Amino acid sequence: MISASVEIQVPFHDVDMMNVVWHGHYAKYLEIARCALLDKIEYNYNEMKASGYAWPVIDLHIRYPGPACFGETVSVTATLAEWVDRLHIRYEIRNASGKRITRATTTMVAVDMSTQSMCYESPQILIDKVEAHL
Amino acid sequence: MISASVEIQVPFHDVDMMNVVWHGHYAKYLEIARCALLDKIEYNYNEMKASGYAWPVIDLHIRYPGPACFGETVSVTATLAEWVDRLHIRYEIRNASGKRITRATTTMVAVDMSTQSMCYESPQILIDKVEAHL
Amino acid sequence: MISASVEIQVPFHDVDMMNVVWHGHYAKYLEIARCALLDKIEYNYNEMKASGYAWPVIDLHIRYPGPACFGETVSVTATLAEWVDRLHIRYEIRNASGKRITRATTTMVAVDMSTQSMCYESPQILIDKVEAHL
Amino acid sequence: MISASVEIQVPFHDVDMMNVVWHGHYAKYLEIARCALLDKIEYNYNEMKASGYAWPVIDLHIRYPGPACFGETVSVTATLAEWVDRLHIRYEIRNASGKRITRATTTMVAVDMSTQSMCYESPQILIDKVEAHL
Repeated sequence: MISASVEIQVPFHDVDMMNVVWHGHYAKYLEIARCALLDKIEYNYNEMKASGYAWPVIDLHIRYPGPACFGETVSVTATLAEWVDRLHIRYEIRNASGKRITRATTTMVAVDMSTQSMCYESPQILIDKVEAHL
Repeated sequence: MISASVEIQVPFHDVDMMNVVWHGHYAKYLEIARCALLDKIEYNYNEMKASGYAWPVIDLHIRYPGPACFGETVSVTATLAEWVDRLHIRYEIRNASGKRITRATTTMVAVDMSTQSMCYESPQILIDKVEAHL
Repeated sequence: MISASVEIQVPFHDVDMMNVVWHGHYAKYLEIARCALLDKIEYNYNEMKASGYAWPVIDLHIRYPGPACFGETVSVTATLAEWVDRLHIRYEIRNASGKRITRATTTMVAVDMSTQSMCYESPQILIDKVEAHL
Repeated sequence: MISASVEIQVPFHDVDMMNVVWHGHYAKYLEIARCALLDKIEYNYNEMKASGYAWPVIDLHIRYPGPACFGETVSVTATLAEWVDRLHIRYEIRNASGKRITRATTTMVAVDMSTQSMCYESPQILIDKVEAHL
């Protein structure tokens, strides 16, 4: 299992008039953890681009069992779940007392930038990067 | 069927270094359409708060069949799908040529602000607001 | 005088826990009006890039005499103030009752993308675009 | 001199189609450093609110001598410059090689939340908090 965790202190500008993080901002927190995960396998967005592939997010699903407040430090963990056909990552966010406040998944697929066509299998470079790390 | 549509011209600050709208920004577009829908039934966030209920989003699911670019005008439609137990809304976003580029759903539940407890059925005020409009 | 105005309805996700638009979000409102102004002279960001120049904002100054709230419709006006050496734009934002709630300026300079060097005078293409419109 | 520094790794969602941080996002970086500074004197936004005062930003000025890119770690320093009549803070942002890429100032004034009137002098609580730290 390849995973990465980051700690994020909730900034004031992410909190809405109900005094909790606005639900849409969690996509940013997921991305910060996802990039930490991709850094681990040395295939982050810049390396993706250099390898000739874009990897757009084609599916985002977030569940919110609990809120987060201004100043709170939350822990975001991203775990690589599938990589052979697509890049599927699972996330959870826990608050300072360890309670899980968010679960999420993202799915990304490779797009060959030279042809702008979607790949139905992950390109070999992703497989190599993952296997080198396992 | 109660639904509302808004047109949004993609601003520069929503577009990422791959030249398309960053996937997380779509949560904002959904919210703008959702608020137009809630305005129609006269039960938008301010009225929710005044009625003693918060309605946090507990589930967000977005699929992205296609991208949107800077300056493009997209049309976002929100449709009320369920309201008896929870507020479930479906969305689709179409680009200028009518192609569907995003499908999404959100689920909101009522939280009684006096007790901070989640309601397992929608409060009567939502039912009344919806029925008045149907 | 070349100017452009846009109307923006304040979305929920721009409002902070003090119930007013978070001050940093106004940079987005200014950009939407600036792009409307640049569209008028047919030299918006895409045309800038195609002409071989980037035009980074090198100075942003915003004053906030008053707040804006969720759902309020504000009017943002951008006026071209200088263009010979740099692109200097003035803004004001008024609320629904006509009260001025924000004044701002931005300064942009041309950067020749082939050499990555800053231009000390505006390139001829901007001068031509402005004069064609005056 | 009271000051605080934070390190921020530029996230993907802050970078625009010119491959640099969009200028408006710096307001967030300033706020993160400002909150670290306010934490030092134990008078951050929650304490402000509890003390009966809101402290809206009434002036924001940012200069951008240089850009920042995705993945780069920048250092943001906030320094308390004036506090007797208003809360005036100066900022600078340096990139990983120490080059200053942004200079900025913010001005905040106290608003008595019970009367909604602006204070022409800082309330005693701010003076006390600052002096306790000097």
